[in-house]
Amino acid sequence: MTVRERLEALYALGEGEGANRPGLSPAEEEAHALAAGWMADAGLEVSRDSAGNLYGRLLGRRPDLPEVWVGSHLDSVPRGGRYDGALGVVAALEAVARMDAPASRTIAVVAFRDEEGWRFGHGFFGSRAVAGALGPGALDRHDRDGVSLRDALTSLGLQAQEGGDWLAGPPAAYLELHIEQGPVLAGADAPVGIVDSIVGLVELEIEFHGREGHAGTSPMDARRDAALCAAAFQIMAAERARAIPRAVATVGSLRLEPGASNVVPRLAHLVVDARAPDDERLDALEAALREAAASAASEHGCAVEIERVGRTAPVIADRRVVSALEAAAPGAPRLPSGAGHDAQILGAAGVPVGMLFARSLAGGISHSPLEESTDADIEESVEVLRRALPELCDRVGVASSAAPPSRADPRDG
Amino acid sequence: MTVRERLEALYALGEGEGANRPGLSPAEEEAHALAAGWMADAGLEVSRDSAGNLYGRLLGRRPDLPEVWVGSHLDSVPRGGRYDGALGVVAALEAVARMDAPASRTIAVVAFRDEEGWRFGHGFFGSRAVAGALGPGALDRHDRDGVSLRDALTSLGLQAQEGGDWLAGPPAAYLELHIEQGPVLAGADAPVGIVDSIVGLVELEIEFHGREGHAGTSPMDARRDAALCAAAFQIMAAERARAIPRAVATVGSLRLEPGASNVVPRLAHLVVDARAPDDERLDALEAALREAAASAASEHGCAVEIERVGRTAPVIADRRVVSALEAAAPGAPRLPSGAGHDAQILGAAGVPVGMLFARSLAGGISHSPLEESTDADIEESVEVLRRALPELCDRVGVASSAAPPSRADPRDG
Repeated sequence: MTVRERLEALYALGEGEGANRPGLSPAEEEAHALAAGWMADAGLEVSRDSAGNLYGRLLGRRPDLPEVWVGSHLDSVPRGGRYDGALGVVAALEAVARMDAPASRTIAVVAFRDEEGWRFGHGFFGSRAVAGALGPGALDRHDRDGVSLRDALTSLGLQAQEGGDWLAGPPAAYLELHIEQGPVLAGADAPVGIVDSIVGLVELEIEFHGREGHAGTSPMDARRDAALCAAAFQIMAAERARAIPRAVATVGSLRLEPGASNVVPRLAHLVVDARAPDDERLDALEAALREAAASAASEHGCAVEIERVGRTAPVIADRRVVSALEAAAPGAPRLPSGAGHDAQILGAAGVPVGMLFARSLAGGISHSPLEESTDADIEESVEVLRRALPELCDRVGVASSAAPPSRADPRDG
Repeated sequence: MTVRERLEALYALGEGEGANRPGLSPAEEEAHALAAGWMADAGLEVSRDSAGNLYGRLLGRRPDLPEVWVGSHLDSVPRGGRYDGALGVVAALEAVARMDAPASRTIAVVAFRDEEGWRFGHGFFGSRAVAGALGPGALDRHDRDGVSLRDALTSLGLQAQEGGDWLAGPPAAYLELHIEQGPVLAGADAPVGIVDSIVGLVELEIEFHGREGHAGTSPMDARRDAALCAAAFQIMAAERARAIPRAVATVGSLRLEPGASNVVPRLAHLVVDARAPDDERLDALEAALREAAASAASEHGCAVEIERVGRTAPVIADRRVVSALEAAAPGAPRLPSGAGHDAQILGAAGVPVGMLFARSLAGGISHSPLEESTDADIEESVEVLRRALPELCDRVGVASSAAPPSRADPRDG
């Protein structure tokens, strides 16, 4: 099967238009089963960890050394595209399958679970789990049907672990191929690009508490309308993000209660997704959003509760990963990643990370069935990975003192 | 059983905090069964029409004449209060039960179905059905679980009729007792008030269509964010309503698609509930809201679709109903109704209508478990109805040429 055929096989899973493989759903499970089969066909040693992450290992000449990991995720947003996540796993698998000889250390193709965080409202489940970065209460989160993350794991035969870290031991490096999901490489006429940093992400869950009332008998000036607070906040959030270069803020999830058209809402619940390329701007954005929420609440006589449900620090790519990619793709442009990726979680946990971007068409549209990359660009990505991986195995050894110490047997990871 | 005990019995139906008896649900069905039993206990002749509206008749001295109807509805919004709708039915039943002798014509205590319109997004189902004012396509509306109004009726053993009008024949007059749901009577220190007009209501269903995108890689200036359109519209809608005296506009129902926190929404769907006390102001408000929606869409590069899903004309109370109430409650203040009621539907269909309001406490809060009226005010309401009903039976006869012609046997109504 070609990389394209595998992408299409994954895309066909789940129900409805586009990719529909929410994290820890049966559709993600099917995607992992497909990928596990492809790994086995390619002669890789297949395993999964207690969080359900999938590994396919090509043993290296020194299997005792910390491994190099390469991969991405197989879950999707609702109505997503063919490439987000899936390309990184499938292309890595193809690159490893094409290698002529074992590398200096073991290379593991990895598929992390529930990167998008759509179902439980919190992203990067698999990479957080393996990095011991789930945080307290993470397994008690519920999906819209009231199913907890813990129960979802159990029903997949997985063990729920909040506190565990590095289920076996950290890899020596992690390399992730992903589609750019933006217009830069298309503008630069380049099939691939090398990521030098990944934006940081803060997620705030905000609840405005107003006063319920009858839509007909509550005069406009006597209302405490929670929906108007949310509306005012959304306008201000967009303004605040625009004022900070390369920052963005998005409200994609919003719920009114009680939700009847003839009742002034007593509650508005929303999640704001805020991103910026460095800690300073991310902190400034979060402070501005908190101030905007307080101001919107006060303007409409409501109370506000703000909870930070996640913060992913901006990550700078490791120079050895970048140089291995540069050697494999001479002249490829460098660019930052505007999206968060599993590489960010591992990077924040101390693993040397780097990313390769494949060019996106259609203006970089993503999280949509319109997501597009060409066969030629995909082939180039596979070849760059194939050339970079053995090089990376050698380079991380050269400066191994900078990498975190290995623990136990990495192959159990 | 006292009126209070009956209100509490109704309030205890359904699940969750407060009143939870959505139209055409099992809980509304239970409420109708309870009321039918109380009607039978009071010696009334009980029937229900093909829309499920409940009637309890006290035959008059001239059962051949068009009847006088008195009542309200038994469904509720989610998490509603004890009095909205229920009081009008229970107090009418008590007033009729207390009458010493038959009136000059038959008095029917009526409980209309699904006044709130919460479940199918369109209010006044029962009174619209009996007045032949459902409109085309009304029975094809779906609730959130995909159940159509037609199927909901069928499952209750009711026939689905869109075009039918006056299932038997119109009443000579309709009188409705309802809680004020506002602060006027409390401010005037009056237990009851006589309604002289009912505000008109326009419901617009608005969809903003933007472009879906990744929350991290879509720069703020390149977005077409449907949620931001909805937010801008909500702010403008409140401003437009404030500019028109005694007008209100409410967005209580709003849905984003796809609804993931890390996806810029491609669609925002909302319903705006707009009310004004006369046709001129109602038309001006609707025009302003349509202009605001177009402006919000254009500001954020989105398309907009606006559908008027309902318009209920403002209604002026019939002078004979008002005078019968004045005779029964001398000195009671007059006031307008800010809320729509079944009386409005019948009034728009040509029935002489009028309303009595009972004082609301707690600032007039309604559609909420905090809704409150005192036992003393409830007793006063019952007594005013008891005195007004025989008087009304006589007065509508005096000027019967002004009432719509009777058809067939009104007791089948």
